[in-house]
Amino acid sequence: MNRRSSSNSTGRQPLRSGSHTPSARSLTRRISTFSNAEQGDDQAATTTEHAIKEEIEEIKRYEDFTTIDWVQDAAREQIRRKARRQETAGFFEREGGIGWRRKLWESYDAGQAWIVVTLVGFAIGLNAAFLNIVTEWLSDIKLGHCTTAFYLNENFCCWGAENGCPEWKRWSSFWFLNYIFYIIFAAIFAITAGVLVKAFAPYAAGSGISEIKCIIAGFVMKGFLGAWTLLIKSIALPLAIASGLSVGKEGPSVHYAVCTGNVISRFFNKYRRNAAKTREILSASAAAGVAVAFGSPIGGVLFSLEEMSNYFPLKTMWRSYFCALVATAVLAAMNPFRTGQLVMFQVKYDRDWHFFEILFYLIIGVFGGLYGAFVIKWNLRAQAFRKKYLTKYPILEATVLAVITAIICYPNMFLRIDMTESMEILFLECEGGHDYDELCDRKNRWRMIFSLAIATVIRTLLVIISYGCKVPAGIFVPSMAIGASFGRMVGIFVQYLHESFPTSAFFAGCQPDVPCITPGTYAFLGAAAALSGIMHITVSVVVIMFELTGALTYILPTMIVVGVTKAVGERFGKGGIADRAIWFNGFPFLDNKEEHTFGVPVSQVMTPNVVALPAAGLEIRAIERIMAENKFQGYPVIDDVTSKILIGYVGRTELRYAIDRAKRDQMAPGHAKCYFTSTSASTTTPSSSMPSVTFDTMAATSAQLNVDMSRFMDPTPLSVHPRLPLETVMELFKKMGPRVILIEYRGRLTGLVTVKDCLKYQFKVEAQENPRDDRTLNEGQERLWSVMHRAAVWVDVRINELRRKLGIGGGPGIQLHSPISQTSSMDRGQHSAEDERPSIELEDRPRGRRGPDHVDVR
Amino acid sequence: MNRRSSSNSTGRQPLRSGSHTPSARSLTRRISTFSNAEQGDDQAATTTEHAIKEEIEEIKRYEDFTTIDWVQDAAREQIRRKARRQETAGFFEREGGIGWRRKLWESYDAGQAWIVVTLVGFAIGLNAAFLNIVTEWLSDIKLGHCTTAFYLNENFCCWGAENGCPEWKRWSSFWFLNYIFYIIFAAIFAITAGVLVKAFAPYAAGSGISEIKCIIAGFVMKGFLGAWTLLIKSIALPLAIASGLSVGKEGPSVHYAVCTGNVISRFFNKYRRNAAKTREILSASAAAGVAVAFGSPIGGVLFSLEEMSNYFPLKTMWRSYFCALVATAVLAAMNPFRTGQLVMFQVKYDRDWHFFEILFYLIIGVFGGLYGAFVIKWNLRAQAFRKKYLTKYPILEATVLAVITAIICYPNMFLRIDMTESMEILFLECEGGHDYDELCDRKNRWRMIFSLAIATVIRTLLVIISYGCKVPAGIFVPSMAIGASFGRMVGIFVQYLHESFPTSAFFAGCQPDVPCITPGTYAFLGAAAALSGIMHITVSVVVIMFELTGALTYILPTMIVVGVTKAVGERFGKGGIADRAIWFNGFPFLDNKEEHTFGVPVSQVMTPNVVALPAAGLEIRAIERIMAENKFQGYPVIDDVTSKILIGYVGRTELRYAIDRAKRDQMAPGHAKCYFTSTSASTTTPSSSMPSVTFDTMAATSAQLNVDMSRFMDPTPLSVHPRLPLETVMELFKKMGPRVILIEYRGRLTGLVTVKDCLKYQFKVEAQENPRDDRTLNEGQERLWSVMHRAAVWVDVRINELRRKLGIGGGPGIQLHSPISQTSSMDRGQHSAEDERPSIELEDRPRGRRGPDHVDVR
Repeated sequence: MNRRSSSNSTGRQPLRSGSHTPSARSLTRRISTFSNAEQGDDQAATTTEHAIKEEIEEIKRYEDFTTIDWVQDAAREQIRRKARRQETAGFFEREGGIGWRRKLWESYDAGQAWIVVTLVGFAIGLNAAFLNIVTEWLSDIKLGHCTTAFYLNENFCCWGAENGCPEWKRWSSFWFLNYIFYIIFAAIFAITAGVLVKAFAPYAAGSGISEIKCIIAGFVMKGFLGAWTLLIKSIALPLAIASGLSVGKEGPSVHYAVCTGNVISRFFNKYRRNAAKTREILSASAAAGVAVAFGSPIGGVLFSLEEMSNYFPLKTMWRSYFCALVATAVLAAMNPFRTGQLVMFQVKYDRDWHFFEILFYLIIGVFGGLYGAFVIKWNLRAQAFRKKYLTKYPILEATVLAVITAIICYPNMFLRIDMTESMEILFLECEGGHDYDELCDRKNRWRMIFSLAIATVIRTLLVIISYGCKVPAGIFVPSMAIGASFGRMVGIFVQYLHESFPTSAFFAGCQPDVPCITPGTYAFLGAAAALSGIMHITVSVVVIMFELTGALTYILPTMIVVGVTKAVGERFGKGGIADRAIWFNGFPFLDNKEEHTFGVPVSQVMTPNVVALPAAGLEIRAIERIMAENKFQGYPVIDDVTSKILIGYVGRTELRYAIDRAKRDQMAPGHAKCYFTSTSASTTTPSSSMPSVTFDTMAATSAQLNVDMSRFMDPTPLSVHPRLPLETVMELFKKMGPRVILIEYRGRLTGLVTVKDCLKYQFKVEAQENPRDDRTLNEGQERLWSVMHRAAVWVDVRINELRRKLGIGGGPGIQLHSPISQTSSMDRGQHSAEDERPSIELEDRPRGRRGPDHVDVR
Repeated sequence: MNRRSSSNSTGRQPLRSGSHTPSARSLTRRISTFSNAEQGDDQAATTTEHAIKEEIEEIKRYEDFTTIDWVQDAAREQIRRKARRQETAGFFEREGGIGWRRKLWESYDAGQAWIVVTLVGFAIGLNAAFLNIVTEWLSDIKLGHCTTAFYLNENFCCWGAENGCPEWKRWSSFWFLNYIFYIIFAAIFAITAGVLVKAFAPYAAGSGISEIKCIIAGFVMKGFLGAWTLLIKSIALPLAIASGLSVGKEGPSVHYAVCTGNVISRFFNKYRRNAAKTREILSASAAAGVAVAFGSPIGGVLFSLEEMSNYFPLKTMWRSYFCALVATAVLAAMNPFRTGQLVMFQVKYDRDWHFFEILFYLIIGVFGGLYGAFVIKWNLRAQAFRKKYLTKYPILEATVLAVITAIICYPNMFLRIDMTESMEILFLECEGGHDYDELCDRKNRWRMIFSLAIATVIRTLLVIISYGCKVPAGIFVPSMAIGASFGRMVGIFVQYLHESFPTSAFFAGCQPDVPCITPGTYAFLGAAAALSGIMHITVSVVVIMFELTGALTYILPTMIVVGVTKAVGERFGKGGIADRAIWFNGFPFLDNKEEHTFGVPVSQVMTPNVVALPAAGLEIRAIERIMAENKFQGYPVIDDVTSKILIGYVGRTELRYAIDRAKRDQMAPGHAKCYFTSTSASTTTPSSSMPSVTFDTMAATSAQLNVDMSRFMDPTPLSVHPRLPLETVMELFKKMGPRVILIEYRGRLTGLVTVKDCLKYQFKVEAQENPRDDRTLNEGQERLWSVMHRAAVWVDVRINELRRKLGIGGGPGIQLHSPISQTSSMDRGQHSAEDERPSIELEDRPRGRRGPDHVDVR
């Protein structure tokens, strides 16, 4: 990098730094002049600038699938605050002194965030209560109906009655007919949910957690948090859960909560304009979402901290705390279950644990880790398969899954009932008269162990294929249910061991002649382990488990189990299912859980040949040509093409706006020259032959041939030295959140780096380190697809035969989108553009590694 | 800033950026050459460099009272890792393939952190158990002794016995003699603690939380976390608590835990060298400290997150989790109280709360906020007074405080007993037979309210004067005790209201004819409010309260109370007592709770006239002169004094080392010339007349007249544009943690900014906004001091008279360091240098605003 200009001396006397020679002093003076000029002591200029800034903000919207610039957003917010302060000072000073009106105004301004958070919390709490009621009703309607009032669920129908009541009727008295009804209802619910999602809000599918993570980190996905998504997710979620699919409500809860936060905050000026500020509200909403889903306010805050937000300052923590508090309080006041309990599964373990039990806790912890690793791996494969073959049949897929789930699950006593309910049963102690289906009976022990093992395995497989299908679907509760059944199994086994060998030295910790082992606690720990294993979170899991059950004496066992799970999980792969999904979908997200050692300078990674705009003298049409040729999101501005001294950075949107404005207001022709250099200097004569750094192009009288664009340029983009380690640059991206970092060497622009550049390099390194061959995998997928295809054809033929026999042409019945008709129409483009639009599966990483942003993320 | 050089063109053809003219391509090529050169493809060079780096690290120690450079530390760690990886690769490859030994080595390397954390947690748990036992014994010994074995406390002495036992004897059967014994023991304990602290570890005084906050943020305070501090704090803490002073053990627990972390981590290579990495362990230790103090592992993690650490990545969170888990498990296994309980104050509130109670919760919340604001304000004034007048009498001060506390507290039933014990009593429900001194008795109601009010007021005043005295002293438990007594008072009052007006509409939520109000819950909420009010923490308080009591049904009330407290507290001042103490002591700590709007560019704040070293040709003696004249911690390196093109930054330590090394190894004379420029370029001929950017000064053959110092320079210091907003620069400091940020304008060095510069500006702005006059305050202090002085003289005269009468010359008795003898020796410098050395009270902000770092923090 040996391109120092030997003619760099500016003719000033050489001065010894630090010594107070006259020239040094003059330099200081000049610097302070400069500073003063920067400070904008000229009130009028500030106001103009402010007006223009406002104008830009009005047009300034981040493009879809780009990232926001936290640094610029923060700087803009600062300017806005300062301006507002001056404004209000001017306005209120007329009253003389600091009046109460000013104070009121200021407190409103400062309290805006709290108002928003309160409203959001309130809305989330109401919505959660509504969802809980609807879900309960829908789940019960699968099994029977209330004869007194159809809209009551079993609980309310039989309010106060013990052991069932005559008002609540099963659909039929035949076991098999009930089974059929169960399956039919499941199918109807799944179809409805699928249709709603597909027709109105494709973004409402799935859990949404990984996308929200990216959005909170600064990614822009328009419509993902919109009102439509909110509405559809809220309606489709109860349907999806009631359909019996192995999906939970927690992920979707977070999603609709964040949608609520986004929709409400848009009504407030402060948030409409500042994308970075809105992220704080989104973090808080995410906390409230988990809080209402589990009835666990502190757990929600910690979940938002541990999983959702890559940057979580204390201010956001307090907002989250408050939002979760309001939401939970509203939910508690609504009291949808009429139990008066916030705690979902109240347990009272009256026995303490024993040190020898730690051995079994370790087993449960290891199970959690293995479960997580297994499900993450195979679910991602299922997702890949889904993306490759099933994208066109989202409704059919959900329906088939629901039907299969219903068919398989009905016979098993733990799978038949709702997952939440089954957890409640499994957590309970045997003492105290709670005994679902003789779970505690000693003579049933082996049958129970077998039944629980079956439940564990089947539920795991169902989760793998269900999570990610195109209805609202979370993975928290299914995982916990799986963990609980496994844990209870272990617990019953330990109980058996103890009762078989009560005098063994191993069980010396037990008191003689009283029950020693509580299998319910093992179920509780199993649930914690599985949840931690799938999400790779620790502290929040512990807190959520306590808030769910109140089993505080078990804090150490829970921590041990979760710690073991975490260690095992780390061994198998980095990140929980949400992180892996981000990786899988190729979102531009720098994971701050990972730490890399690349050992290369940023110059290795940067884009070296940057399209930069010279600061002075470029014609408008030239700029337009450059913008047409290169769809970059912004351009560095340099002194001139030879010296490449960096002047600033101008965003595409601002540039577009500036040009349009020049053309419109100043009638600037295509050959008008643009100047990006600042006008706050002494030399005011423009010299066109040799473009100087300083100009006064503001003078509108001179001509429309000179267009001043300095106000649209960011004069202080973050820039670093090319030899700075890549890791430090990535830290800068993670912590400061700029959209682009310029590489400057001795004042000269030498490159530009974005998050995408870093990620690309990271993937390259990872691919080199772990080369993988997915040919066999692809073959397997291909074979699976052909089997499924053949099965579909067979079913279609049978159905057609049946139709012919019964003489039904296009009668009602269950409108299974027949796979055949769809398969044959595969290439006909029968599906609307809706499917083609970049939905949550942006693109598969292995096949391209670029998101759907046709415009390069800069 | 109009100093553009018109002769900037370098003779190259003007090239249009982005277009692929030959010159553009050559530029690219040059850049990529440059990158390759940077990457260090030359293995040998890397090794040499590595060796030198190692050597620097050996000598590289951060000076006392400076801040560490996180960016540099991280970069160095990266290099080290890479080198180690290459090293181990080379070493193990000889075995052929990746052998198990390499894997083992790698896992050891990766697991080092976990090993350290485990050891630290273990040590902290053991220490906590020891402290608990000793504290219990010392507290009990004040009241009586065990006749069977003197080393048993009351609990163990009377193990198994109900309602007291004959083995445990009070010191006397006279009330007044017991009172005297109580006072005498208090005095002895206080004196011992004070002497220990003063003689061996002045840093062991106080709570230590604010200093640890600064240390974790990167400040260096040698000895603050040393082995001596650990030892003395561990010994003096039980004494201080047993002395009955209104101090708690939680702050000191954090301190000794962090000391443990620091001491243990020093045995590991990874941490001895990397100050930034060590901070992670310190955060984890802080979590364990709170965890063992409260028996609250998750609360500890959250406390570390919310209060201690300004940067808390998830990795640190997991470490903290693990450390807290180990420490708590060890403590539970030791089981010092033989209760088998981790939960300190087990409560079983079997009544749920009612919505109308929220009104009273609000009152408690407001009390918490006011309490916090009041105590913080007056405690800081007390601290100022202490610093001004009492620094020389630390032992006397502690003793007098202990005696006063004992005298005042003994008569009040709630003040007499240990604070923890009183909290336990106040938290309890009335049902279930726990009834300390007829607290629940209806006829005693007004007496209890009065007694509790007295306790609240007296304890508050005692906390104000006690917190900060020169023995280990925390403020958590005293605050909670105050809150609990206030809360219980409110609770009893509400109970009275309800019983007086049972049919009022207000109490409609109550079920008739059963007790409705549980005063114990109010005490519980009061404790939470006061703790939150004093520390300004929210989430951790809620979690700590649950882990302390297990009262999970009260999660919403607790959250409401803490939320109100937080809001009220914010209204009165920024930050809890720890933050205010940091501000008061003038530590260079950028609080990330605060948000500022300055609206000025960094050029306003920076030091404009920076002493910089020219990159080439400066003589060694010139450098030495500069270093002698300016005690800066480092110097920017510039191209030459005219152009001021920024080349890099060299730390004082490295420079010192480089010069010493040159003198020693190369026999470089004083007039030898130093070169900081890199040697990895094409032009190898040095031109002495016009120092070029590139040199080859490595060739040791040429002469000792050219000394290459490029290896000691950081070529990539963080640099920003002078117009960058100050807020962004402060964000950079907070989030990236560099020691210094250089201000570069178009490649030229124009200034330098440190955290101190930012803080100075901030204080200036704050002082302008809120000018304060502390003349009256000073007068008040003066008057108070003269009163105290006169009292001391009076006491001294009386004692001397007594001595004369009794004929005791210098007999034993209680060696009260008589204030007179000390006052008279005030100017004689009788006190050792120990007092003069910068202890925790570095300097008062109002009178100087500079820490004790004679060397400017750069």
